[in-house]
Amino acid sequence: MAGSSVGQNFRITTWGESHGAALGVVVDGVPAGLSLEAEDIQVFLNRRKPGQSKFTTARLEADRVEVLSGVFEGKTTGTPISLMVRNKDQHSKDYSNISEVFRPGHADYTFWEKYGIRDYRGGGRSSGRETIGRVAAGAIASKILEDLGICVKAYTKSIGPVEISKVDFEEMEKNRLYMPDAGAAEVAEGYLEACMSDLNSSGGVIECVVTGMPVGIGEPVFDKLDANLAKAMLSIGAVKGFEIGDGFAASGSTGAENNDAFIIQDGRICKETNHAGGVLGGMSDGSDIVFRVAIKPTPSISKKQHTVNVSGEETEIEIHGRHDPVIVPRAVVVVESMAAITIVDALFSNMSARMDLIKEFYRKDR
Amino acid sequence: MAGSSVGQNFRITTWGESHGAALGVVVDGVPAGLSLEAEDIQVFLNRRKPGQSKFTTARLEADRVEVLSGVFEGKTTGTPISLMVRNKDQHSKDYSNISEVFRPGHADYTFWEKYGIRDYRGGGRSSGRETIGRVAAGAIASKILEDLGICVKAYTKSIGPVEISKVDFEEMEKNRLYMPDAGAAEVAEGYLEACMSDLNSSGGVIECVVTGMPVGIGEPVFDKLDANLAKAMLSIGAVKGFEIGDGFAASGSTGAENNDAFIIQDGRICKETNHAGGVLGGMSDGSDIVFRVAIKPTPSISKKQHTVNVSGEETEIEIHGRHDPVIVPRAVVVVESMAAITIVDALFSNMSARMDLIKEFYRKDR
Amino acid sequence: MAGSSVGQNFRITTWGESHGAALGVVVDGVPAGLSLEAEDIQVFLNRRKPGQSKFTTARLEADRVEVLSGVFEGKTTGTPISLMVRNKDQHSKDYSNISEVFRPGHADYTFWEKYGIRDYRGGGRSSGRETIGRVAAGAIASKILEDLGICVKAYTKSIGPVEISKVDFEEMEKNRLYMPDAGAAEVAEGYLEACMSDLNSSGGVIECVVTGMPVGIGEPVFDKLDANLAKAMLSIGAVKGFEIGDGFAASGSTGAENNDAFIIQDGRICKETNHAGGVLGGMSDGSDIVFRVAIKPTPSISKKQHTVNVSGEETEIEIHGRHDPVIVPRAVVVVESMAAITIVDALFSNMSARMDLIKEFYRKDR
Amino acid sequence: MAGSSVGQNFRITTWGESHGAALGVVVDGVPAGLSLEAEDIQVFLNRRKPGQSKFTTARLEADRVEVLSGVFEGKTTGTPISLMVRNKDQHSKDYSNISEVFRPGHADYTFWEKYGIRDYRGGGRSSGRETIGRVAAGAIASKILEDLGICVKAYTKSIGPVEISKVDFEEMEKNRLYMPDAGAAEVAEGYLEACMSDLNSSGGVIECVVTGMPVGIGEPVFDKLDANLAKAMLSIGAVKGFEIGDGFAASGSTGAENNDAFIIQDGRICKETNHAGGVLGGMSDGSDIVFRVAIKPTPSISKKQHTVNVSGEETEIEIHGRHDPVIVPRAVVVVESMAAITIVDALFSNMSARMDLIKEFYRKDR
Repeated sequence: MAGSSVGQNFRITTWGESHGAALGVVVDGVPAGLSLEAEDIQVFLNRRKPGQSKFTTARLEADRVEVLSGVFEGKTTGTPISLMVRNKDQHSKDYSNISEVFRPGHADYTFWEKYGIRDYRGGGRSSGRETIGRVAAGAIASKILEDLGICVKAYTKSIGPVEISKVDFEEMEKNRLYMPDAGAAEVAEGYLEACMSDLNSSGGVIECVVTGMPVGIGEPVFDKLDANLAKAMLSIGAVKGFEIGDGFAASGSTGAENNDAFIIQDGRICKETNHAGGVLGGMSDGSDIVFRVAIKPTPSISKKQHTVNVSGEETEIEIHGRHDPVIVPRAVVVVESMAAITIVDALFSNMSARMDLIKEFYRKDR
Repeated sequence: MAGSSVGQNFRITTWGESHGAALGVVVDGVPAGLSLEAEDIQVFLNRRKPGQSKFTTARLEADRVEVLSGVFEGKTTGTPISLMVRNKDQHSKDYSNISEVFRPGHADYTFWEKYGIRDYRGGGRSSGRETIGRVAAGAIASKILEDLGICVKAYTKSIGPVEISKVDFEEMEKNRLYMPDAGAAEVAEGYLEACMSDLNSSGGVIECVVTGMPVGIGEPVFDKLDANLAKAMLSIGAVKGFEIGDGFAASGSTGAENNDAFIIQDGRICKETNHAGGVLGGMSDGSDIVFRVAIKPTPSISKKQHTVNVSGEETEIEIHGRHDPVIVPRAVVVVESMAAITIVDALFSNMSARMDLIKEFYRKDR
Repeated sequence: MAGSSVGQNFRITTWGESHGAALGVVVDGVPAGLSLEAEDIQVFLNRRKPGQSKFTTARLEADRVEVLSGVFEGKTTGTPISLMVRNKDQHSKDYSNISEVFRPGHADYTFWEKYGIRDYRGGGRSSGRETIGRVAAGAIASKILEDLGICVKAYTKSIGPVEISKVDFEEMEKNRLYMPDAGAAEVAEGYLEACMSDLNSSGGVIECVVTGMPVGIGEPVFDKLDANLAKAMLSIGAVKGFEIGDGFAASGSTGAENNDAFIIQDGRICKETNHAGGVLGGMSDGSDIVFRVAIKPTPSISKKQHTVNVSGEETEIEIHGRHDPVIVPRAVVVVESMAAITIVDALFSNMSARMDLIKEFYRKDR
Repeated sequence: MAGSSVGQNFRITTWGESHGAALGVVVDGVPAGLSLEAEDIQVFLNRRKPGQSKFTTARLEADRVEVLSGVFEGKTTGTPISLMVRNKDQHSKDYSNISEVFRPGHADYTFWEKYGIRDYRGGGRSSGRETIGRVAAGAIASKILEDLGICVKAYTKSIGPVEISKVDFEEMEKNRLYMPDAGAAEVAEGYLEACMSDLNSSGGVIECVVTGMPVGIGEPVFDKLDANLAKAMLSIGAVKGFEIGDGFAASGSTGAENNDAFIIQDGRICKETNHAGGVLGGMSDGSDIVFRVAIKPTPSISKKQHTVNVSGEETEIEIHGRHDPVIVPRAVVVVESMAAITIVDALFSNMSARMDLIKEFYRKDR
């Protein structure tokens, strides 16, 4: 099936393999009249770029984005925007030793069984480089949200056992782990160094906060805002869990604790607390949307592992080459991007919810 | 937007409100030639029926399903199957006191803001009764899976702080909490009684296991099997989290611990462990699929709560009427149903993945 | 595949067979706040009802619609509207003789080959009764359009060789052939009587005009307004052709003849002529949308015909029972309905085309 | 809305403007294991290339396709295939005089009204160059069909008033009008020369024949094979009509004439005639699929025309630059491509129609 697209009214379609000619995305449904430069997208891509610290791979790609369509004289035209990044620094030979072997924790085996063929170079389509398309599209979605006063912000909540105890966005910009807590970041760095010297890797948790949401965004039944966010997050490689608001903790709670009382603040309806994470009945409730995603440890480790090969024989593997000991910091911008894409689509879909607003939109005197 | 459908090749569309004339579902894409009786569906609906124990609402609905189309002489015909359950035992007056007030933890406020109108009776569209359509469709999906040797089984993993310590399916059938651990069930019953006497409610966790999956089901990028399962689960009211395999625990783990080694067993490729939960790169890997969903405490509690009304004034509310102190036991069959629906759709979508199998399917000598 | 739904933001899903328990439709994406009574829908259904004249079948069904969801106190709520019509006057035995034989011009053979099973009673899913769902949904779409000042009007343009030479809507209401030309209607009646006495049937052409369209509705590439209208029309059983504006005649024309000059009229941009039929580049251009559909002759004729049976033997068939000698008059409301459904969906999809209008829609001071 | 994609299980997404950096397509849902070289696609693109005769524009683009993803070692991998053609020979200044004026018969005015901005260079997104993506995708679809023994063949049926009177495919290859009748081609050339010397242009009709179809392809209700073909054809710029089988002629016919008798031939069920055009009830019936599309005359003509400008003033325009006096010959391969794309999607969607075949597909012993 065709599974490389997501979204209805704002839809992205990604393409490309780790070691193919290029990777990219087509973003369809971008409204006309949005100011957009290649640089807006490049800023986002730079945040996921490898080679930024000792904890990210040394692959030195420029990852320069090319805007191929949909923009005219600095403005979007309403037609699909095609974005492309050429692959350059491909050490395909690094991967020759894995062409016949299924790496544990990777999609090698499932690709092989599903398709009977696989582009093993660098993980092919299941490589983290596939997220280039998501992030490029996310940059556009974020610009749209910015124009509507909505802000999506993600950060590293934990790396392995090391969790933040405060959220200081200024601090986050200063450390390469995107942790908004300098103390925790320092401890996490030590933990990661230990992982690396042990030829091992670490997982972590990313938290994302969306501010400025109007009320009522998301569709009641299957296209609940949190349901689509969950799908968007689990569609990112290495994500193993999603929770919104109190999430799994709510399951151990009681109604009296977990319900958020409605109050009036500055003449507007608000919630006194936000256990719900900003969503009630699948629709935004005006509070901040707060969710978390669980990221598994990087499966590519240099430690020797048991596995089997394409001939169905047991064997061992040591994965060398360039791999992050933790992908959490680079995944932060991917989480932000997928959140922004999901929310833009929900905002557009909501526009036909009420007859009175449709009539105002299509009033003849405009 | 139209948000009441889910699935591509196997698609369900639910409709109906808690206190409307009826609720139902249209199931489109059911293959022809499947044996199907109304009773197959009724068995599933009975599992979500209220009034089965002191922990479920006393609403005594028969909830008899009517098969309106798509079945001829006991077999499906390939055309859409329309299923309907009439609403009968509606105490609409019970809800008159909430017509002007937004219940904390409910979708009253968000519906009001999105649509400017709401059917307040029994929660309207956001009532748990909406799941009737899901479960009726799930019964059909389960029959399809059964024919393919695939089995979806869910159970109560925890209620409030009480967690199971073993999985004994026989035991599960014996207690009304669907807990596969008699001891835990007994403790949980005590906990729920305490909640009730405190005019309070509890949350819990449901775990679901899928056995017999072929390898390679799910689409690599946005339509990953776990991504679509996550969406399906978060689309159920009251679900606040989803995790597959080790889930959030994986985030605190290392690659060496979390990777599942491939081995050969009985001549087939298997995994030695199943931290992944049966999915690699978004495709089934042949191991059991194992996931969990977090359910929040029932928001309708009899305790007095602060809230606001439709005129924007602060007020208080005590919610009486019939409400489960915990919805987990009745949600078990909903989780199973949504999982079955998602997997059938993924199986059908996978059929065009390989040119060799397509050629065999359309060979001229058939 | 699931093929019983159409539309993105306004989506209908029909279900039901000619001789099943009932037929119906779920209409999802209806905006909240639209006034809607069962009678609004009944009026539309009555227009496609059989038994209205000697040229329509004698099947005396009441075809009373039941509104099962989505309406509360006379207003739509934004949730899916489920509409159902019970089948009552089923002479299933009339069809027993065709259970083993493939009727020429019908879908019997293709259903049989595709599904390996078929509900042969009255044509099952391929019966004209399937259009009940379309017309019920069309009634809702038409109400939405009416609120926006848009009017969809179809009529019989020709029956067999008899074509209208004027369009007088008042006249159309007076004759049962929905021909807006009294003279042509009289000739057509004579032609149909001759067909009937010859145990034969007739085809015809329906023309549809949409007035009041805003400019720019429809999406440039694959979701062109005329492309979606073409799909909607060809999805109606017995339709064999679609043309917009000058249609096939344009193919024999020249650019100088076929181009419509733009002019200013009453201070607005208009077209001097309307060879385009109201669509330029797939978007409405502000002129009337004008299209035609070709309807084949009713395939059920009493004349003896050659055919084969399910055992693959050649045989002969005489189709008795109740069949219209021409379906064009009853198809007029189906064409109107499918046009209205298509246009509403296009209007909703267009709402996110421009950033400036999105910003106005979501302005914070609302 | 996002309208640049079409198809469910085999889905294409086109992007690009006439004078942007490039144009292209992402083809998602291509099965793995199909042999594919860039040359397979280039052959198709060359057929739509301008500059091949005096009747096609002199724009001398190489239009070399680049395969950016989804192919590994000469085989498709099941991942999306991204195809791109760089724009090179752009005389943007040729279009400067139309930046402020709405060309009659073009989408200038509707784009302007819908989006409030337009890339006027060469028609931007509404240029015929948009079909590059369709044709590139069509080449892949055609390869899939070839592997299944299905052949799609289109040709020029008429140009202006000149119609073919025979179908000789060998002859078609010899003349640049793609007319399978040497005599008609000669007359048509004379007609076109007269058009050109009159600064005028011509329309025409393309006919398409699909051979080798299995029975039962297409979905009964909204996704009828002919409905989706109609949409695909009307989505091509300049197409104003679609008819299948006898099409509009069927509307003037009788049931006895129009019904195709079933017969047994070589032990198989066939139709004695093919008035239906190979589709019954929206599903292929095993006969050749035969349909026609009406193409309007090229709107860009050098004759002086009345029009208005963006300031709402009446004015005149003479369109110079490079324009085909008839687009029919170059549109032949576009019609073939869209037909192939539609049929592949229908074939894939059909694979889950029957439980017995699904069980065989997923049998455990494979």
